[in-house]
Amino acid sequence: MGKQEGAEKRMKTPVHPRIDGLIQAIARLPGLGPRSARRIVLDLLAHRESRMRPLAELMRQVADEIRECPRCGNLDLAEPCTICRDERRQGHALCVVEQVSDLWALERAGLHRGRYHVLGGVLNALEGIGPKDLRIAPLVARIDAEGVEEVILALSATVDGQTTAHYLAERLHEKGVRVTAIAHGVPVGGSLDYLDEGTLAAALKDRRPV
Amino acid sequence: MGKQEGAEKRMKTPVHPRIDGLIQAIARLPGLGPRSARRIVLDLLAHRESRMRPLAELMRQVADEIRECPRCGNLDLAEPCTICRDERRQGHALCVVEQVSDLWALERAGLHRGRYHVLGGVLNALEGIGPKDLRIAPLVARIDAEGVEEVILALSATVDGQTTAHYLAERLHEKGVRVTAIAHGVPVGGSLDYLDEGTLAAALKDRRPV
Repeated sequence: MGKQEGAEKRMKTPVHPRIDGLIQAIARLPGLGPRSARRIVLDLLAHRESRMRPLAELMRQVADEIRECPRCGNLDLAEPCTICRDERRQGHALCVVEQVSDLWALERAGLHRGRYHVLGGVLNALEGIGPKDLRIAPLVARIDAEGVEEVILALSATVDGQTTAHYLAERLHEKGVRVTAIAHGVPVGGSLDYLDEGTLAAALKDRRPV
Repeated sequence: MGKQEGAEKRMKTPVHPRIDGLIQAIARLPGLGPRSARRIVLDLLAHRESRMRPLAELMRQVADEIRECPRCGNLDLAEPCTICRDERRQGHALCVVEQVSDLWALERAGLHRGRYHVLGGVLNALEGIGPKDLRIAPLVARIDAEGVEEVILALSATVDGQTTAHYLAERLHEKGVRVTAIAHGVPVGGSLDYLDEGTLAAALKDRRPV
């Protein structure tokens, strides 16, 4: 919706510039646009004490206290982050992801029992993103420091994601650590005829005995 | 989406309770749910200084300064509101709406050149909402005070909206003012075969010579 912003007729609502500013700031958030932002602001205005003020205060607090975990790159209010502090997490399996959002997605699945390492992006020659722009050196340092035995690469199945996976595999093999990558294939619940050829090729290549 | 909240598996993301609280507060806003709220929070966390902090500050400011216009019931930071202060607005035509959101919608259309009066709801016997719960007495008082010649009822085409319109028409006729209601009919761009019978009946009843 955010992209239709320009298409919608310039808002003529004679609201106070500050309310208009609030609408526009909310309209810029991902997945929102001027229409949904207006609806949200009207709801906030109507529930000033019960919703608007607490939300503003919570947002300010989180903005003040949020930290990037110096160890894994996760965003948290604790430093090191809640996952890195969790003693029950197994240190021998380390899962490498591009962004904090990927870490959260994997945590919701609740299957990985080890810790994480957030790269902060993927290699991209065109955009000038090289190994030094990502948190790769800290990753290599963690292998020895934390006695990591397996690095699980959970990167996007895009050209850049796979380039980064190959680069990391090479760097990490030198350290004598086992490197694996999450499987590519047919999404659970997906039917074959809607899938692209790349996914089908990957699924066929990685077939396994049943 | 907000209604699917219960359907989604209880979030297991081991995020700090305060970040989780922020996600849940945002998920309760109209049109949003846990998924979109998470996406918004991740975006805010990634742009802490450029988006999150300014948004929190703007929201707090607006919450502090927002006022209900004592004359028309509009929400604004100015008191009386921007519309009531506007000298170019014609005082003789007064448009009555249920909610501030209706006023904003009409203003976006940009056709009404007069002022507004926000009722704050509609009559509803079941919910115990009577004339004293709405801003009806202030409306009647404005007729004389502002020299209003025509009251335009722009209320919902629902049973409660029309009950309220009838009640208001009776009260206002006593004051000798002209009372009109916005037309009901086929929405512009709408095709007949998708419309309900009530709309078709209204459109047929209010037919006009061409």
